[in-house]
Amino acid sequence: MSGILLKEVRLEGKVCDVLIEGRRFSRIAEHIAAPDAQRIECGGKLAIVPPFQNMHSHLAMTLLRGYADDLELFEWLEKHIWPAEAKLSQDDVYWGTRLALLEMIRSGSVFVNDMYWHQGATLRAVEEMGLRAAIGFMYICVPGGGVLESNRQANEELREQAQNRSARISLTHAPHAIYTVNEKTLLEIGEKARAEDAVLHIHAAETLREVRQCQAEHGKSPIAYLHGLGLLGPKTVLAHCTHLSDEDIGLISDSGSTIAHNPVSNMKLCSGLFRFQDALQAGCRIGIGTDGCASNNNLSMLDEMKFAALSAKVQSGNPEAGKAEEVFRAATQAACQCFDIDAGEIAVGKLADAVLLRLQEPSMLGDYNLRANLVYSADSRVVDTTICDGKILMLHGEIPGEEEILERNRVICRRLGGGH
Amino acid sequence: MSGILLKEVRLEGKVCDVLIEGRRFSRIAEHIAAPDAQRIECGGKLAIVPPFQNMHSHLAMTLLRGYADDLELFEWLEKHIWPAEAKLSQDDVYWGTRLALLEMIRSGSVFVNDMYWHQGATLRAVEEMGLRAAIGFMYICVPGGGVLESNRQANEELREQAQNRSARISLTHAPHAIYTVNEKTLLEIGEKARAEDAVLHIHAAETLREVRQCQAEHGKSPIAYLHGLGLLGPKTVLAHCTHLSDEDIGLISDSGSTIAHNPVSNMKLCSGLFRFQDALQAGCRIGIGTDGCASNNNLSMLDEMKFAALSAKVQSGNPEAGKAEEVFRAATQAACQCFDIDAGEIAVGKLADAVLLRLQEPSMLGDYNLRANLVYSADSRVVDTTICDGKILMLHGEIPGEEEILERNRVICRRLGGGH
Repeated sequence: MSGILLKEVRLEGKVCDVLIEGRRFSRIAEHIAAPDAQRIECGGKLAIVPPFQNMHSHLAMTLLRGYADDLELFEWLEKHIWPAEAKLSQDDVYWGTRLALLEMIRSGSVFVNDMYWHQGATLRAVEEMGLRAAIGFMYICVPGGGVLESNRQANEELREQAQNRSARISLTHAPHAIYTVNEKTLLEIGEKARAEDAVLHIHAAETLREVRQCQAEHGKSPIAYLHGLGLLGPKTVLAHCTHLSDEDIGLISDSGSTIAHNPVSNMKLCSGLFRFQDALQAGCRIGIGTDGCASNNNLSMLDEMKFAALSAKVQSGNPEAGKAEEVFRAATQAACQCFDIDAGEIAVGKLADAVLLRLQEPSMLGDYNLRANLVYSADSRVVDTTICDGKILMLHGEIPGEEEILERNRVICRRLGGGH
Repeated sequence: MSGILLKEVRLEGKVCDVLIEGRRFSRIAEHIAAPDAQRIECGGKLAIVPPFQNMHSHLAMTLLRGYADDLELFEWLEKHIWPAEAKLSQDDVYWGTRLALLEMIRSGSVFVNDMYWHQGATLRAVEEMGLRAAIGFMYICVPGGGVLESNRQANEELREQAQNRSARISLTHAPHAIYTVNEKTLLEIGEKARAEDAVLHIHAAETLREVRQCQAEHGKSPIAYLHGLGLLGPKTVLAHCTHLSDEDIGLISDSGSTIAHNPVSNMKLCSGLFRFQDALQAGCRIGIGTDGCASNNNLSMLDEMKFAALSAKVQSGNPEAGKAEEVFRAATQAACQCFDIDAGEIAVGKLADAVLLRLQEPSMLGDYNLRANLVYSADSRVVDTTICDGKILMLHGEIPGEEEILERNRVICRRLGGGH
């Protein structure tokens, strides 16, 4: 068989045929004959849309889903999350990442910008399961010194594992945050990223505490501080940006940096509400991320879009803010520019990333506006089939290897202290 | 066959058998032999929990899901929602309600406190589909006068249809709000409700505009005004309560009234954020509702719980507010006391309302805390089977008649102006 033929699929309301050859969409027309292609019968009951791009996550934290919730930030981190993470082996991260990827495929995501430990294992899991990912070299400094030894080791392993990586995977440099990485190291990382034309991925302006500390130490906001270090630019992803001044928004917009907005995590940890509408109007590039499962607690971009739209309204006091159309665009296109992925649209010549949606679901009726239904009503039940880079990752709800992934993770969770 | 035997189901983490006979749970034990019962094999992979009770909705607004979003409240109502509603026939409401009930069953809800037009049709739909509902006699006054003629007619039809209703259905008196129903009429409705020992269901303190108008006209808050009219009490459901003073919270708590909290709708329409934690600590009875589909846009209590927990944290600035356990309780037990429904727990003697949850889903792993997973991670994919009043409404994802309901609604939506 050669290629995939989507027969009678709904594209922007019209029924048509879509042909995928190699990694790309090769034809879209009313009737396509492609006798050698694998045929997916959509019968006008499945719609095709671009899949979701998760712009900020810590995948293997699926292992800590529901491990500790509803706690004050530092009690949560110090007494629960960090001690549990210290127990995670490379193998745990491999299986936890596979669980995360399973969940992503089920809920229609095919790209993730990840930041976590044991990244070699993450890379292996992504290669095997067929999604796209940006995987970060991770940097946290010891107080008053250089980068953690555990970071160095994991980064070396990643570098080695990544040598023969597929085109679906890119590497980023991911200093954790301005309060965990010192200035000298930030400058070095910035140089390295520029030299490799790699994305720089950092938590920025997430909490008021970070902003105040930065003001006290550097006399400026975290965004202005990063700008001063030359770390803003079209290859920079700023995760959270919960606390932005008008000046910060201007710096982000002018530099072409991308904001990875994480509305659920920001609400769950009481970090604050991102100024979605202000940033959008100022021309900032905005993507949406789920953050890790410990502070969400899922990886569904369908959930995340609803929170993005609604938190934009609450933050601005304006029900016209966070429109479904804008949120959907942020959730499906933000990675394309920043990570040089020629996808984000169902169009001839584009990389064949796609989701087929079941329109025969109660949550998809009234059927006036598909994007509004996706943002405000749908859940993962509507995701029928997920395609990435011209390959089928899930067909009519079936994902190869699902059982084993669940079983392996259940065993790890039991060891970490769970079982309900 | 007599009764339903749930074989090897997980209840609070332990595997056991659960027997349902007639309308109630009759036995829970390690092994039950019941050769005449319909057997549901759970194999330790399905968990049983009480189903959700949707404390405030306008069911047939499923017909307007995605019809108009992201608009200023009065533009939304006057230019879009009201003109569309004016086109709805009794038959439309019947099918729109069936669509709503389908969605409820799929997402694990078995009770709804409804307020809408053509309620005779609503009652018929609920009777046929086997859920529980409280259906309201509806009251809106013409300016300076009595109740709308259309209300009177629909209420009469409801009264007639309700004569032979099942025990699953109760009737409420539902004056729309204090700004659409005059004082004299409110007093009359209150008397009627008391005489019939019926629940009084009213929108209250939903917007700042309502609060300010009430202060200007009556010199007191909406809650104090209702209290002054003798309308608070254990048989009163106050929908929204977005704007409450400390005094209001005291009046609600002292009177035993139930708050129906609608976090998604409050966020989507920018009404404000309910003081969940303050009301809970003051001893208020709190339930959770989805409101209608035009301002949500779904009927999933799983979605609603996540928003309830997260909006409680944002409103209070406290990550310990809106704990999963508290939110789950509000979502599964609030109707029991107020509407005299002897359910809300999986326990011998209780009415057999239950949901069986698929634990073999990525969103349910880590498996440390089932309630946290339900509140923060799960979506309707985890709902395998829904049982109400000892009858199976959905078995392993199958609901009789689903196709016809979807098809009928598609036709109505096309007439109303849809098709994406």
